[in-house]
Amino acid sequence: MEYVRNTWYPVAFSSDITHSLTRRTVVEQHLALYRTRANEVVALEDLCPHRLLPLSMGRLLDDAVQCGYHGMTFDRSGKCIRIPGQQVVPPSARVKAFPVVENLGLVWVWPGDPARADKTKVFDLPQYHDPGWTTTHGDALHIRASYLSICDNLIDPSHVSFVHLSTIGSSASEDVPVKTEQRGNTVLAWRWILDAPPVPVVAKLGRFKGNVDRWHYYYLHAPSVAVIDFGSSEPGAIGPDGDRSRGMQLFSCHFITPVDGHNTVDHWMHMRNFAPGDRAMSESIKAEFRVAFSEDKTILEAIQHEEDRHGVNRRKVKLALDASAVRLHRVIEQLIAEETRPLPTNIHST
Amino acid sequence: MEYVRNTWYPVAFSSDITHSLTRRTVVEQHLALYRTRANEVVALEDLCPHRLLPLSMGRLLDDAVQCGYHGMTFDRSGKCIRIPGQQVVPPSARVKAFPVVENLGLVWVWPGDPARADKTKVFDLPQYHDPGWTTTHGDALHIRASYLSICDNLIDPSHVSFVHLSTIGSSASEDVPVKTEQRGNTVLAWRWILDAPPVPVVAKLGRFKGNVDRWHYYYLHAPSVAVIDFGSSEPGAIGPDGDRSRGMQLFSCHFITPVDGHNTVDHWMHMRNFAPGDRAMSESIKAEFRVAFSEDKTILEAIQHEEDRHGVNRRKVKLALDASAVRLHRVIEQLIAEETRPLPTNIHST
Amino acid sequence: MEYVRNTWYPVAFSSDITHSLTRRTVVEQHLALYRTRANEVVALEDLCPHRLLPLSMGRLLDDAVQCGYHGMTFDRSGKCIRIPGQQVVPPSARVKAFPVVENLGLVWVWPGDPARADKTKVFDLPQYHDPGWTTTHGDALHIRASYLSICDNLIDPSHVSFVHLSTIGSSASEDVPVKTEQRGNTVLAWRWILDAPPVPVVAKLGRFKGNVDRWHYYYLHAPSVAVIDFGSSEPGAIGPDGDRSRGMQLFSCHFITPVDGHNTVDHWMHMRNFAPGDRAMSESIKAEFRVAFSEDKTILEAIQHEEDRHGVNRRKVKLALDASAVRLHRVIEQLIAEETRPLPTNIHST
Repeated sequence: MEYVRNTWYPVAFSSDITHSLTRRTVVEQHLALYRTRANEVVALEDLCPHRLLPLSMGRLLDDAVQCGYHGMTFDRSGKCIRIPGQQVVPPSARVKAFPVVENLGLVWVWPGDPARADKTKVFDLPQYHDPGWTTTHGDALHIRASYLSICDNLIDPSHVSFVHLSTIGSSASEDVPVKTEQRGNTVLAWRWILDAPPVPVVAKLGRFKGNVDRWHYYYLHAPSVAVIDFGSSEPGAIGPDGDRSRGMQLFSCHFITPVDGHNTVDHWMHMRNFAPGDRAMSESIKAEFRVAFSEDKTILEAIQHEEDRHGVNRRKVKLALDASAVRLHRVIEQLIAEETRPLPTNIHST
Repeated sequence: MEYVRNTWYPVAFSSDITHSLTRRTVVEQHLALYRTRANEVVALEDLCPHRLLPLSMGRLLDDAVQCGYHGMTFDRSGKCIRIPGQQVVPPSARVKAFPVVENLGLVWVWPGDPARADKTKVFDLPQYHDPGWTTTHGDALHIRASYLSICDNLIDPSHVSFVHLSTIGSSASEDVPVKTEQRGNTVLAWRWILDAPPVPVVAKLGRFKGNVDRWHYYYLHAPSVAVIDFGSSEPGAIGPDGDRSRGMQLFSCHFITPVDGHNTVDHWMHMRNFAPGDRAMSESIKAEFRVAFSEDKTILEAIQHEEDRHGVNRRKVKLALDASAVRLHRVIEQLIAEETRPLPTNIHST
Repeated sequence: MEYVRNTWYPVAFSSDITHSLTRRTVVEQHLALYRTRANEVVALEDLCPHRLLPLSMGRLLDDAVQCGYHGMTFDRSGKCIRIPGQQVVPPSARVKAFPVVENLGLVWVWPGDPARADKTKVFDLPQYHDPGWTTTHGDALHIRASYLSICDNLIDPSHVSFVHLSTIGSSASEDVPVKTEQRGNTVLAWRWILDAPPVPVVAKLGRFKGNVDRWHYYYLHAPSVAVIDFGSSEPGAIGPDGDRSRGMQLFSCHFITPVDGHNTVDHWMHMRNFAPGDRAMSESIKAEFRVAFSEDKTILEAIQHEEDRHGVNRRKVKLALDASAVRLHRVIEQLIAEETRPLPTNIHST
């Protein structure tokens, strides 16, 4: 499978990477991850160049990694600094080191050209740093499906009315059309459902007595970061052009790690502007989302199974609701094409 | 694998298909099966044409099927009658519906040309409708082997002496030759073992004090319905040309569903002309058969494993006892050839 | 995968082969093994030539094997001596019989040209027959890796310092260089670690108060028999040219069965010249080895997984410690080349 490579991909929750060796995989690249004594995260190619044992099966000697088979030892830059039983270390004895940055409680790795990795460009959400907002980290959910199929799901408000009836959906929205647009490499799909009963998750909170206006704004930052802004207000209180932060606003965030063509990890979390610091509320919302995302997982894995069975040539019916997924695929294809395009001739060369 | 397609295949016990969605597979075709409120069985292609989710993972809305992902809804003819969020339903939005008929407590599906499906031609056994006979439905036994190898087994009286010594076989029959003939698309193999001890299953019934004459008539109705008529009488009481219904007669019936090249379901049942309505007897015979068929399953799965390992080119030794299997394969090949042959030019066209 | 074929391979512990049918596999050849009433071991191709059922799923009739499907019966030479239901046995109705010999408590099979099988040439260790030595049979350890990778491990003293720190290794030896040489088809790698603490296994025995001289001599008799002579003495008591049997000497023996390109069985045992007949000592050493070999298994299976993932073209860094493995591969390649080379023209033919 082809991937965008010159980008920051989330690969782990920061809290899962400590001063011990841990394997993670992104775009088919196995990584040996660890935290140095100075608390920085290192990501090395997870393969000893001698006999191909994963380095993550070895041990840390201070901030260096020793292979578990014959003791070849690599520093955090991937350079071999010791080969037991011989004095000379050949220059080929090294492993790749990948640029790493942390943000939003996640470890991000850049699998592409290291010279282009700019740590200031890692994905951010201002609300994460706003004391009025509360963030709750969820799970690293493994889904046996392509990340593209998962991103289609995350830019698709329509399925909520059918897949998530018991949690975050409602049949009142079945026929409300979805609008879609593109802003740079971000695809946005949204709709408002006006003056309708709140969805089960919000109804349970008990703030609204009757109907609500509710919104879904699905932002997919290509290739694979999804933020779904959904919320509710008293009917007419905000409206489609108003300031949504005046209502109950909840971000469902999905930091998607493409593992390989058939495996993906969804590092999910949520942020909200109500009930700040209320841990029971955090756990309650997390439990609801855990149910909803397992509903998606079931469907996405079944679809992957059928796609493998029928092959890419099976003709599918395209629906109006696919507009945002079509845009997203186009953005990702352009990003991949740009990376593989030959560089322009240097016009200053004469 | 190639299959006969213009035929009625058993796909489920009638009692297993209710007003809820159930997946079954025949000749590599997944089916979403359900019973309408008027009690008719519907068989749709189990694949939503939009995103390829199996329809059997959706829900029934009265007699229509709603996909579990985006709510596309299909009526019992396979026509799409609703696409949430859009008014126009493109004509390509449909799934195949397969002809269905019920008989013998089974649901039968016709995977071939629907125009040729004649419900009156579904397989029948008159004894099933005869009040003097008692039918006991068995299991839907999954066997990880090709249906051809299973049908070979079901047209083969010889193996009984070696595989089923503890249940329905006896070493007295080891060297009794088998006769075989073909009647249309039915292959028949049979033998009588005269004046020998009853097999364990019959001996347990206690009706005979000493030796018996016993018979096996194996009928294989191509491609995949097997009825084994076996029974016993006092020595000389009936004889090879007599009316076998005067003895203790038992039909072991196998309604074989070819799933794919490596998987088969055997819907088995038995019918008998003795101990009418005696449920303890029914359960006792069923338990014996369950043991016997699991003995076959073990052998057939081991053979499939070796065939996969050695490939089709591994030369096998042909024995006299293979005569009926050779005939059966020839019948099936002819049926397949007839289906794929180009239609004759219409002689009335001038 | 290519294998040396004209050689005796260990396939089972003698104690595991009795008067019943047992399947074992060597160089991708399945064998039906059994012991005759006269206590000789027979190895037949494990495949009935009729329907391909493994003969090991049948039954023994005295010293003959009856197939479990239709009763075809083969004598210990592989000749078919009965086909139930027919008089004539076609000459093609036979299975291969393989030369067999027993030694060292193992059954050895010759998968190559039977005319070249010389039972006096089976691998032997004189100490096995010496009453001053005690032999303890271990396990038949299944490792999901190529036998070549396992033999590399068994001719490699260097890994012990990193993989087996808790049992038979010690970091004192990390940088002691390994010597290697070839004697016919045997590759030998060895080193002495002088005046260092004993390894954990030896320390537990309590014979030595302080440091010891210790040695490792790794003999790999191509293609796949490994004997590791290791032991300890008071510092200076024996020395690299002395008689090692004067110290505490322990042979760790690995009789390797190549099953197929991804599966291997290690029939391991140990022999020692101390604590003769002490069963508690035997069990204690066996328990330590069981831990050590499971450490190897973990590493070898992980490497096989990576090799399958990266393919044979992945360039690896060669180290000084690979010298003995390089020699071993060269010996095995030569043995295979000799077997496949056309025979020389007979110079006596005129």
